[in-house]
Amino acid sequence: MNASFATMWAELAPIGRDARTGGYRRLAWTPAERECRSWFYGQAQSRGLIVDADGNGNEVAWWFPDGAPAIGGVVTGSHLDSVPDGGGYDGPLGIVSAFAAIDQLRSRGVLPTRPIGVAAFADEEGSRFGIACLGSRLLTGAVDADRAAALRDGDGRSLPDAMRDAGFDHQLGESQLLGGVAAFVELHVEQGRALADVDAAVGIATEIWPHGRWRFDIDGEANHAGTTPLSDRHDPMLTYAETALATRKKALLAGAVATFGRIEVLPNAANAIPSCVRAWLDARAPDESTLHALIADLLAHAVRRADRDGTALQVTAESISPAVSFAGPLTDRIRRVLPVAPLLPTGAGHDAGILAAAGIPTAMLFVRNPTGISHAPAEAATETDCLAGVDALAGVFADLAV
Amino acid sequence: MNASFATMWAELAPIGRDARTGGYRRLAWTPAERECRSWFYGQAQSRGLIVDADGNGNEVAWWFPDGAPAIGGVVTGSHLDSVPDGGGYDGPLGIVSAFAAIDQLRSRGVLPTRPIGVAAFADEEGSRFGIACLGSRLLTGAVDADRAAALRDGDGRSLPDAMRDAGFDHQLGESQLLGGVAAFVELHVEQGRALADVDAAVGIATEIWPHGRWRFDIDGEANHAGTTPLSDRHDPMLTYAETALATRKKALLAGAVATFGRIEVLPNAANAIPSCVRAWLDARAPDESTLHALIADLLAHAVRRADRDGTALQVTAESISPAVSFAGPLTDRIRRVLPVAPLLPTGAGHDAGILAAAGIPTAMLFVRNPTGISHAPAEAATETDCLAGVDALAGVFADLAV
Repeated sequence: MNASFATMWAELAPIGRDARTGGYRRLAWTPAERECRSWFYGQAQSRGLIVDADGNGNEVAWWFPDGAPAIGGVVTGSHLDSVPDGGGYDGPLGIVSAFAAIDQLRSRGVLPTRPIGVAAFADEEGSRFGIACLGSRLLTGAVDADRAAALRDGDGRSLPDAMRDAGFDHQLGESQLLGGVAAFVELHVEQGRALADVDAAVGIATEIWPHGRWRFDIDGEANHAGTTPLSDRHDPMLTYAETALATRKKALLAGAVATFGRIEVLPNAANAIPSCVRAWLDARAPDESTLHALIADLLAHAVRRADRDGTALQVTAESISPAVSFAGPLTDRIRRVLPVAPLLPTGAGHDAGILAAAGIPTAMLFVRNPTGISHAPAEAATETDCLAGVDALAGVFADLAV
Repeated sequence: MNASFATMWAELAPIGRDARTGGYRRLAWTPAERECRSWFYGQAQSRGLIVDADGNGNEVAWWFPDGAPAIGGVVTGSHLDSVPDGGGYDGPLGIVSAFAAIDQLRSRGVLPTRPIGVAAFADEEGSRFGIACLGSRLLTGAVDADRAAALRDGDGRSLPDAMRDAGFDHQLGESQLLGGVAAFVELHVEQGRALADVDAAVGIATEIWPHGRWRFDIDGEANHAGTTPLSDRHDPMLTYAETALATRKKALLAGAVATFGRIEVLPNAANAIPSCVRAWLDARAPDESTLHALIADLLAHAVRRADRDGTALQVTAESISPAVSFAGPLTDRIRRVLPVAPLLPTGAGHDAGILAAAGIPTAMLFVRNPTGISHAPAEAATETDCLAGVDALAGVFADLAV
C-alpha cells in the first residue's frame, strides 16, 4: 500500500506544476486538468474499476462486489482541479487516498458487499468560471444547465466551448451518477491548523460554514491620470479600496472571514484612471444570519462610498452555500470507527457540502496540514499523515461496505 | 487641405480600435502600432519626404529645402501609440496635423529655407514596457540602452524581442536623429478642459508638471480565503487598499494629482488570499519639492500599514520626469505668431518635455478637447478645432522655416 500511494503521488506531482511558483495550475478543462483525468482513468483501469461519467465532467470509478447483492454504494473521492498556484494536496489527496484504501482492502483479501466508488468531481475550485463546486452543483441540480452554459472564463470562452476544447462531449445538468448511493465520505487535506494544534493526523468534520462569492462591478470614468483634477474624477479604484478595507474591519467584528483575492481593472494602465474595477468578495461566517448581515452592512458601506466617488456599484451573488452540518448517523458511525479523531468545523466549501445539501448522507475526514496553509504552494501533509488518512478511509470502507 | 486632413484621419481611424470599448489599443510594437507606422511611411512617401529612423523606433519624415541653404531644421510631430482603450487624438493628432500643415504650405506655394520634419516617437505612452516616452528618452540618453533592453511586458516578453517580433532591426540607445535641430514644436490634443473653459481652439504650453511612476510591490502570504483566521493573514490587498486611499487624501492636500490605475494580483483567485499585489502609482505636482514630499509621505504611510499587515513593501521609481518649462525664445516667437492663443500648463508628460530636458529648443501647442477626457474613448476634438491647429502649425512653420 505504501508503494501504491507513493507511486500515484509521484505520477501526479509534475502535472500542471508552475516551475516558477511551485504551485499547481490545474484549472478546469485545461490541458493540465485533462492530464489528471487521464491519470484517473489509468488508475481505474489498472484496478479493474468501471468508470461511470456524467455530461458535467464528474467521474466515479466503481469496484462492484463480486456476486454479492449490490445495494447502495459507498463513495469517496474529491477533485483534481486546483486554484491558480494552489497546493498539491487540495483535491488529489482524497482521490489518491481512495485508490490506496481500495488497494489496502484488496491486499487484506477483503471483498465488499456494496459497490465502492472513487469520485472525481469537475471544477471544484471554480477558479476558471467563477462558481465553486460546479460539477457537484450541476450533478445535484443546485446550479441549472442554462446558467452553467452561459458562464465564461477570463478570456471570454464559455464553459461548453472550454469542455469541447478539451475534447469532452458535454451534457450539462442533473445526472444519476450518484443515484442510490448510501454514503459519501470525502477525505481532504485540512486547510487550517486545528489538527496540528491538537497533534492529530486525521479529524472528522462537524460542519461547513455558510459561505458565498459576490462580484462587485464598480463603474467609473476613464480619464488621464495627469490632467484630470481630483475633483473631476469618478475613480472606481477608490470605491474598491474603501470596500476592501471595510471588509476586513466588518468581518473581524462579525467573527467571520472575508477576502478580496481577485480583481480585474480596465483599462489597467498606469497613466489612466480606471473605467471599471471588478472584484470578487469571498465571505464565510459561523451561521447564515451573521453572513447575510455582514454582506448587507458591507454593501451599504460600499454604496455610500460609490455615491461619494460618483461611481456606480452593482453586486452580484455568484454562489451562496448555506451551512452544512455533517451531524447524523453516518458521521456517528465514522466516529465509532475512528474514536480518537478530533471533531472540527471548516470554513472551506467542498463537494461533500453540495452532496449533503442534496440529501445524500455525507461525511468528511481531514488530514493534518502542518503549515495550515492552503490554496498556495506551502500547503503540506507528511507521508505518515497521508497514510494514516488511507488507513482511516480503509477502516470506514470496511465498516460500511464489507 | 481640409480633404487631406479628413482623408488621413479616416485612414487611421480603424487601426487598433476595439469594437467593444471604442478605444484604441495601439501598444508599442504590436500589429496595430506597426500598421500606424506603415501609414506614416506611406504619407511620407506620397509627399516625397525622406524618412530618417533610429534604432529605437523613432522616425522623422523630412521636407528638405530645394537648393536653399539647409540650416537647423524645424521639427514637429508626436506619437502613434496609445494607452489601452485610449482616445484617437492623443498622439496621432500631432502627426496628421503636421502632414496637413506641410500640405497647406505647399498649396500656397511656400518653399522652406530650413528642413521641416515630421516626427513619430516610439512608445510614448509606456503602456507595454512601463516607461513613458521611451523612444525620446532613448534618443536623448535619458534612459540608457541596457535598462531598456531589460524591460519586459506583462507577458514577460523583452523590449528587444518585441521589436524583433515586429520585424524591426533595433539598435537601442542615443541617436543623432534630431542632431542640429533648431526647434521642436509638438501639437497635441488637450487632456483637460482649460481651452474649453476659455473658449479657445488652440493654446500654447507654458510648462509640464514634474511627474513620475512608482511601482509598489507588496508581498504577503497566499492562503485559503475560507480557513485562514483574519489574525493569521498577511494580506497584501489590505496594504494596497490603504495606500490607494491615502494617496487620494494626501494628493488632495498637496494640490497634486496621484492615481493607482494599474494593478496585478497573484494568484488572483477569488478563494485565495493574494501572495502579491503589484500596483503602479502615477503622481504629478506643480513643483518638484511638492511631488517628492508627497511620495515620501505616502511611502511612510504605506510602510506603516505593511508593518501592521505583516507584508513586505518595496517601491521602485520606474520613471521620474522633472518639471519642464517651455518659457524661452521659441515659445515667445510662437506667441507672436498666435497672439490670441491662451497659455496653459499641463500635468501630462510628452516627448516635447524629454527633448526640452535634453536642451533642444521646444514648444507645445494644444488643441481644445470639449470633453476634457483623455486616455479614454471619450477623448474628442472637433474638426474645426483640428483645422485651427493645422493653421497654427502652418503659421509656426512659415515663421520659423520659410
